[in-house]
Amino acid sequence: MKSIKTAVIGATGYAGEELTRLLYAHPEASVEVLTSKSYCNEAFSDIYASFNHVSCQVLREDELDEISKKVDVIFVALPHGIASKKITSEILENCKVIDLGADFRLKDKDVYEKWYNTEHFSPKLLSEAVYGLCEIHRDEIKNARLVANPGCYTTTSILSLYPVVREGLIDIDSIVIDAKSGVSGAGRGVSLGVHYCETNENIKAYKIASHRHTPEIEQELSFAAKQDITLTFTPHLTPMNRGILATIYAKLKPDVDYETVKSVYIKYFGDEYFVRLLNKGHFPETKWVKGSNFIDIGFEVDERCNRLVILGALDNLVKGAAGQAVQNMNLMFGLKETAGLDYAGIMPA
Amino acid sequence: MKSIKTAVIGATGYAGEELTRLLYAHPEASVEVLTSKSYCNEAFSDIYASFNHVSCQVLREDELDEISKKVDVIFVALPHGIASKKITSEILENCKVIDLGADFRLKDKDVYEKWYNTEHFSPKLLSEAVYGLCEIHRDEIKNARLVANPGCYTTTSILSLYPVVREGLIDIDSIVIDAKSGVSGAGRGVSLGVHYCETNENIKAYKIASHRHTPEIEQELSFAAKQDITLTFTPHLTPMNRGILATIYAKLKPDVDYETVKSVYIKYFGDEYFVRLLNKGHFPETKWVKGSNFIDIGFEVDERCNRLVILGALDNLVKGAAGQAVQNMNLMFGLKETAGLDYAGIMPA
Amino acid sequence: MKSIKTAVIGATGYAGEELTRLLYAHPEASVEVLTSKSYCNEAFSDIYASFNHVSCQVLREDELDEISKKVDVIFVALPHGIASKKITSEILENCKVIDLGADFRLKDKDVYEKWYNTEHFSPKLLSEAVYGLCEIHRDEIKNARLVANPGCYTTTSILSLYPVVREGLIDIDSIVIDAKSGVSGAGRGVSLGVHYCETNENIKAYKIASHRHTPEIEQELSFAAKQDITLTFTPHLTPMNRGILATIYAKLKPDVDYETVKSVYIKYFGDEYFVRLLNKGHFPETKWVKGSNFIDIGFEVDERCNRLVILGALDNLVKGAAGQAVQNMNLMFGLKETAGLDYAGIMPA
Amino acid sequence: MKSIKTAVIGATGYAGEELTRLLYAHPEASVEVLTSKSYCNEAFSDIYASFNHVSCQVLREDELDEISKKVDVIFVALPHGIASKKITSEILENCKVIDLGADFRLKDKDVYEKWYNTEHFSPKLLSEAVYGLCEIHRDEIKNARLVANPGCYTTTSILSLYPVVREGLIDIDSIVIDAKSGVSGAGRGVSLGVHYCETNENIKAYKIASHRHTPEIEQELSFAAKQDITLTFTPHLTPMNRGILATIYAKLKPDVDYETVKSVYIKYFGDEYFVRLLNKGHFPETKWVKGSNFIDIGFEVDERCNRLVILGALDNLVKGAAGQAVQNMNLMFGLKETAGLDYAGIMPA
Repeated sequence: MKSIKTAVIGATGYAGEELTRLLYAHPEASVEVLTSKSYCNEAFSDIYASFNHVSCQVLREDELDEISKKVDVIFVALPHGIASKKITSEILENCKVIDLGADFRLKDKDVYEKWYNTEHFSPKLLSEAVYGLCEIHRDEIKNARLVANPGCYTTTSILSLYPVVREGLIDIDSIVIDAKSGVSGAGRGVSLGVHYCETNENIKAYKIASHRHTPEIEQELSFAAKQDITLTFTPHLTPMNRGILATIYAKLKPDVDYETVKSVYIKYFGDEYFVRLLNKGHFPETKWVKGSNFIDIGFEVDERCNRLVILGALDNLVKGAAGQAVQNMNLMFGLKETAGLDYAGIMPA
Repeated sequence: MKSIKTAVIGATGYAGEELTRLLYAHPEASVEVLTSKSYCNEAFSDIYASFNHVSCQVLREDELDEISKKVDVIFVALPHGIASKKITSEILENCKVIDLGADFRLKDKDVYEKWYNTEHFSPKLLSEAVYGLCEIHRDEIKNARLVANPGCYTTTSILSLYPVVREGLIDIDSIVIDAKSGVSGAGRGVSLGVHYCETNENIKAYKIASHRHTPEIEQELSFAAKQDITLTFTPHLTPMNRGILATIYAKLKPDVDYETVKSVYIKYFGDEYFVRLLNKGHFPETKWVKGSNFIDIGFEVDERCNRLVILGALDNLVKGAAGQAVQNMNLMFGLKETAGLDYAGIMPA
Repeated sequence: MKSIKTAVIGATGYAGEELTRLLYAHPEASVEVLTSKSYCNEAFSDIYASFNHVSCQVLREDELDEISKKVDVIFVALPHGIASKKITSEILENCKVIDLGADFRLKDKDVYEKWYNTEHFSPKLLSEAVYGLCEIHRDEIKNARLVANPGCYTTTSILSLYPVVREGLIDIDSIVIDAKSGVSGAGRGVSLGVHYCETNENIKAYKIASHRHTPEIEQELSFAAKQDITLTFTPHLTPMNRGILATIYAKLKPDVDYETVKSVYIKYFGDEYFVRLLNKGHFPETKWVKGSNFIDIGFEVDERCNRLVILGALDNLVKGAAGQAVQNMNLMFGLKETAGLDYAGIMPA
Repeated sequence: MKSIKTAVIGATGYAGEELTRLLYAHPEASVEVLTSKSYCNEAFSDIYASFNHVSCQVLREDELDEISKKVDVIFVALPHGIASKKITSEILENCKVIDLGADFRLKDKDVYEKWYNTEHFSPKLLSEAVYGLCEIHRDEIKNARLVANPGCYTTTSILSLYPVVREGLIDIDSIVIDAKSGVSGAGRGVSLGVHYCETNENIKAYKIASHRHTPEIEQELSFAAKQDITLTFTPHLTPMNRGILATIYAKLKPDVDYETVKSVYIKYFGDEYFVRLLNKGHFPETKWVKGSNFIDIGFEVDERCNRLVILGALDNLVKGAAGQAVQNMNLMFGLKETAGLDYAGIMPA
């Protein structure tokens, strides 16, 4: 029998659907409840025909109180501003909660309200929430009731930069993150911006100097550096379904060379299953992580400019969302951390 | 412990790689040997970086005799004309063989030699080989030593047509199969024909009235109809990585209507896990089967012309190749037929 | 000075925009008025930034009466059901009209109202309207006041079939048209059906046995055959921006062979600039017509089945819409038929 | 009659073919000779079927001496290292030469030989060759016999940075260029790197800190800055046929704000037809320049970091290659600079 009973709130968005896919394939988890505001009372497999013969769930309403009494963990995949209303202390007494949205990621309520331009409805839970970047906060996650699952750009950026920031190898005023995302990151909502003909055969930057993942990246890297970090982050929309590639630039501190950098990556991530450090001359490509929970990290030193170029790639819906959520669940319930996630990506896909 | 020891011969082509991915994720199978002519002695994960941290296999040479003594089943994913040389009665005494290529699919050596324009080197094994279309030949597969895994276009076409041909609902002189395939069906070899800029944003037909999957489709449908069937098959190269959609046309016999057709599909496939019959007004799309072992089948009657339009969709690398090979292995070893294959496809992917 | 003053009604849809592009590049035409319901009073180049530095037109309202007094020709690119209200005899006394929509294509008002499920508001103009398939109705077009520009699937299908239907080389009960279109054919309106992630890496059929271009194809081929033709037409949505490929199947009459078929194509199209007949063994691909007004036609005889396989390819926005509209304008105004259209397609694009 | 006789050496690569397309559509140029090493003696339209009915040229050998006596200008589109052998003073006495390759772009022979790892065979011509970036070197181009047409990444990078570098608004040690290119930039040669399934649905960086366009960018920006500039340039392969987007980062000098930056862009490019400066809040996308000779430039100030983010987009085969070559021809022959290039891009395409 599968031991962990789960519910997915907002199962028909791309992150919710991917999470559902992973949970159905998980050796220890059962899917008890799927909810959807838009498609309530419809069969999940009528919305995602890929689930025919796999799931016979009917989509229900978001009644978290009731659901929290029936399951061991609730995954929340809702637009920001809603989770902070729906997740309460009462619910957390009934079950664990993993929030895939933004509402509990920023520790500072004011920063949240400024960047998201909305009120935060559960400020008291902010201090309890654990930032669910497993490789960085593993021990806290194990004991958490509420985990704030990181954003996709954020996971890529923080993991790629963490060792060199933590160890002070780079000039922290010089960090530039140029990130390229597949279109699924924009969600399943319809707009001209995701119309096939407007997106295909096109690349563009968007939300330049203003994307909401910026403060999340800065918060975690500032913790790592033990000083405030401000950086430039530019997201791009790339004509592909999935994947994020972050190309990150920073000036190296004096006397730091390739080997020094390599050693700190090995120090922090050498034993991590889901972080794959690439050998010299090899660099991440999104195709190698598609459908898997891995993040690939490589780097090069541009010696002519004394600049470090770091590249990180992951699947925005897996390690950047649903896969990391499952990894968090595994930690929270004392399962093997890789349970349900220990497979190669799909290529070509 | 995983109970079935496996080897993949030709692991670096797309079908071989996909098979390797499925076998690593299989609950009962272990991957003991991977071979490659082009990349012998290299790490498999250096060719497919998606396997970093998953596989530490080094690619070996194709020494089937030796390999056959160490494993329970050998999967052969080689170009046609090679398997019929390499697979021998001696090997079949050591282990079972599932051939993903064309060499043992056609029962008539002359038909093979005419369409493939090459000699067949093991004609004696042709009668022993079982055509590995699981839903049609399940019982024979269970006892087979040598299974000829069907082609991708073939699986789509035969399964989509089988019930109506078997039950005589259509005019067998009127069958037209218009099939659209993703580019991975062309393999990993380089040529101008698979150059990104020549393939992207383009659709074309190829091998019109001359594709080698034609006699394979005709052979199986003729068995079903108990009379010779000749049909027109047109493959198309579609700008996507994976997936086959076959749109099939045939004149209905008098007095055959939608409900009659529906009933025969239910008769033959109503209990099949991997065949998903779509409800009226719903039609297959390749995205719903991507990465999974399902084939989706739907149909409509064009009443103005008394013509049946059947649509079948599958993932050419899974149900059209590697997944069906695993399904065959499951049958041959008495495992649950769905073992390692009972999950939803990946979407978007 | 450019001699023909033009207006484009509905300039911000894909067909309207493509037409505007072609008119700006036309040696004899000037763009006087662009209209848009959705973007009225905005600069055209704010909607299509490709027109920065090329056009400084501001989008206006659809006041056809007024516009008709200022220009020589009005192009109407509106959804069906609207043009038949807006185009009146009074307007036709002021200027010529080329309608890119469906309202004046079908000669039989009842057929129109049945397939389009709407009233026709100008039935009196139906007899006057000339079906603007230039290669078939050239002489009538020259003298027309009102031209109904054919649909994209229609142009591909009719031109590909016309010679063999007209000359009675095929069994007219056996015609099947399997057509694959790029996504721009679905227009610029937003919906889940054109969301990038739902369309990319996917192929599907739609409107099976019910697409509205069917009666238009049948009307013109019935005229050619001098008898009623009913056929099966299946459109498919293909993951690419532009292009239509139609694969057409029909049984050959007895004693008709490759050479006979070839001769009738040469008879009808051998001197046509925009129809390119491919040599034996060469088949159309959409990439070769992209951005150009050409239709490429090739064929093969499947001798095993005595079936003719015809392939036709064009750019749905050029020969399938805007380019053919310009070709019609050229004919109506006595310009060189190829003016503004005599260039190669863009590849890769 | 068309007045300028042209030849294209290497007409079957993507740049050569695009150039041929533009020349056929040019109002003043005639295409007299097309050459190809790989396809010599074949019809050009057999290699590029898009040219059927447009061109009946047969591909010839690269005999530049002979060709130079028959034409007014030779365009050379060959791999680096070949042009410097083939282009001689004698040829330049017969006709003008525009080289689309790299051989005459770098003024310093040693820099060339180091980055390209090959000997330069015409060092004497290096001083005569004019760097064909029209907006920067217009006057010299007008009188040049030999023009070195800039690279695609180079044109994007230099034009995007020129005003702020020239006017000293940025810290020149802080420049990072993160460039994303479509696959046609890799040329038409076959390799696993351009296999559809390896490129589609994938983004990757390549030649990190080592791409050969780097010294070309640095050379021109150093001229502009009147001091040596060293910068980090990272190219990326993006899953689309055409287009380059460069996202450029640099620290602003003290007291430089948005308006200051804007004013220098207007100063240098406000009157340039092919440079389109975007308004505040608007940013370049490759789709808006596809098939056209425009470069779109926009920028934003990241005030939190005092960093300038500049974005430049062009079509790598037009303004990044063939279109700029035509623009150079127009200048060299006293034609209107925009002749044959004054049209909007194609969208969607």
